[in-house]
Amino acid sequence: IQSKLPNVGTTIFTVMSQMASEYNAINLSQGFPDFPVSEKLIDLVYQNMQIGHNQYAPMPGLPQLREAIAAKIKNTGGIKLNTETEITVSAGATEAIFSSVLATVNQGDEVIVLEPAYDCYIPAIELAGGKVIPVGLNLADFKPDWQKIQDKITEKTRMIIINFPHNPSGAILTETDVAALKKILEENPQLLILSDEVYEHIIFDGNTNLSVLKDEFLASRSIAVSSFGKTFHATGWKIGYMVAPETIMKEIRKVHQYNCFSVHTPSQFAMAEYLQNEQTYLGVSSMYERKREFFQEAMQKSKFKVIPSYGTYFQLLDFSEVSDMDDMEFAQYLIKEKGVASIPVSAFYSDRQDNKLLRFCFAKGEETLQKAADILCKI
Amino acid sequence: IQSKLPNVGTTIFTVMSQMASEYNAINLSQGFPDFPVSEKLIDLVYQNMQIGHNQYAPMPGLPQLREAIAAKIKNTGGIKLNTETEITVSAGATEAIFSSVLATVNQGDEVIVLEPAYDCYIPAIELAGGKVIPVGLNLADFKPDWQKIQDKITEKTRMIIINFPHNPSGAILTETDVAALKKILEENPQLLILSDEVYEHIIFDGNTNLSVLKDEFLASRSIAVSSFGKTFHATGWKIGYMVAPETIMKEIRKVHQYNCFSVHTPSQFAMAEYLQNEQTYLGVSSMYERKREFFQEAMQKSKFKVIPSYGTYFQLLDFSEVSDMDDMEFAQYLIKEKGVASIPVSAFYSDRQDNKLLRFCFAKGEETLQKAADILCKI
Ligand SMILES: CSCCC(=O)C(=O)O
Ligand SMILES: CSCCC(=O)C(=O)O
Repeated sequence: IQSKLPNVGTTIFTVMSQMASEYNAINLSQGFPDFPVSEKLIDLVYQNMQIGHNQYAPMPGLPQLREAIAAKIKNTGGIKLNTETEITVSAGATEAIFSSVLATVNQGDEVIVLEPAYDCYIPAIELAGGKVIPVGLNLADFKPDWQKIQDKITEKTRMIIINFPHNPSGAILTETDVAALKKILEENPQLLILSDEVYEHIIFDGNTNLSVLKDEFLASRSIAVSSFGKTFHATGWKIGYMVAPETIMKEIRKVHQYNCFSVHTPSQFAMAEYLQNEQTYLGVSSMYERKREFFQEAMQKSKFKVIPSYGTYFQLLDFSEVSDMDDMEFAQYLIKEKGVASIPVSAFYSDRQDNKLLRFCFAKGEETLQKAADILCKI
Repeated sequence: IQSKLPNVGTTIFTVMSQMASEYNAINLSQGFPDFPVSEKLIDLVYQNMQIGHNQYAPMPGLPQLREAIAAKIKNTGGIKLNTETEITVSAGATEAIFSSVLATVNQGDEVIVLEPAYDCYIPAIELAGGKVIPVGLNLADFKPDWQKIQDKITEKTRMIIINFPHNPSGAILTETDVAALKKILEENPQLLILSDEVYEHIIFDGNTNLSVLKDEFLASRSIAVSSFGKTFHATGWKIGYMVAPETIMKEIRKVHQYNCFSVHTPSQFAMAEYLQNEQTYLGVSSMYERKREFFQEAMQKSKFKVIPSYGTYFQLLDFSEVSDMDDMEFAQYLIKEKGVASIPVSAFYSDRQDNKLLRFCFAKGEETLQKAADILCKI
């Protein structure tokens, strides 16, 4: 059988989580929280199953959930959306990204991907028949070099995929970045932005997330993707959403409807009700900021260099003072010999470049973080 | 924006369900049951959410669910499977079909689709870069004409998609069909079968479903897809699975992992436990057989011709003695003027051929079926 994705193996998150479990290591690799989902939200799912909300939801998502999403976006400084045509509920952000890329990237189109990049973008582009144009983020601060991006744009460039707060680095955008992005869009009318904003509600130090949905012009040229799994620590519920202008959303829904058709119905009812009554998403940043503080604090005495993290639930650690191994070797060594699992950042680069960086997920209880830090401090 | 699917509109199931709701019609169009999911299964989902099974499931599916699926397959006459490498849990059968086609159909490959065909096959083939080769099932009995299929096979033919029990007609395969299919596979080593078996547990009159998984040779050349939504009347839970030989499954998982990554975790735990203790799937056929009898009985006095249905929860009715309209017009007329929604079978043909057939879903309570039949009998 001829592979459609010859360069792809099992995703790094599965590989490292499996190795963590095999060696009984503390798993700070794959990004998922280890604390409970709100009892209220769980009860709402149960109630909705009980009253019979178990058949197909509408293909674009439950109307009241789309309303609640629009209200959340408005409430956090975003534009007013048409819930009928501009929002679609997806089987997690991953499905949203996959369906969006398949719907909008044509054979031969070029797509700029800012590396290090989450690993689902490139295979989606390849399956769509597009050409991946990787552009490195600055190594010093993981911010985009807009001139470098500009230089890669040709008439074939169809899309730039951005992801801030950034996985794996925790970098965020400033107003200057947004201005540069807008300029690029103005100068290149064929260009779309795919903005992976799954960590939009995990942003630190009083900063606010610069969603593409906060600007009419940007929004008119963007597909924005978010995730309830990330915000409400229910990554296994596989529920997220995408927002795009009607003409683009029409094409995305054509793919979505034949990809998974619709999303878990009881969760949609529950999430709609939950969002109407609670604005718990507003408190998520401070909860994770405490965890970031705790983990960084605990790592003070180590030989690892702590890279600033401004958002997400990830922390990069530079191990160049600790080991000469490459990051993949060192990550495996840490699991097997020390009992702590992380993700080697080379996995986020198409050329697998090694910058002596590991990514640790701090969406864990303090005891777990302390245990991991204690081990790392002794290396 | 240039469409990747220029010939595709909103799926017929969404269109007709929306029209049904707009006109307050009895909705026998989109296929979904109107009776409750097992309380036990619902409770299991709740319990699993409560004990914290809310984060990502393993990418290929929960091991114990894959074990339970293998046991179900074995228990219904299928082959022994390697649960590690040959089974993947999917976000419903639709995602399984979509990921399978994207993973195995290369640019320029030809894929034979037997029409009338469920509407998700063709867009998936087109997005994969394949060429659709439609072949009509016999109009008399909706069975495959193997000679006609044989005649369409070229060296470029990569796949034949089959779907028995057949949506929309309810046709099933006999041993003769299976023999013909095996002969075709023997003569064409490049060929794969994608077998959509979502109605495998809804088959009438004492017949048994001829799954590709009941034959070692067929299984070695097939991707089989099934759906818990259909079997346990929880279409909104979006949980199904696919089975394929390891070399093929390896490629499908590459797509699945970047398409939706994993499937609703609490449902996977619940389904695994439920399948271990109950074999309720064995009683599904007789439950639906009673509904088929009821609906056919109630339609006796009508001018519609009742087409035999051997499986699925669908009933075709021939309206050639009732109206001169084409099937789309007549379906719309029935919704707007008579208050009964169905699916025009032309929607299942790429050339939209009209054979004066409508599809009615009988997965409904008897009162609903009686009401619909009373209306139809008066036309
Ligand atoms: C889908 S598994 C990966 C989860 C995640 O977002 C990450 O670890 O970066
Ligand atoms: C995904 S909506 C269509 C449901 C169905 O299987 C049918 O009506 O044929």
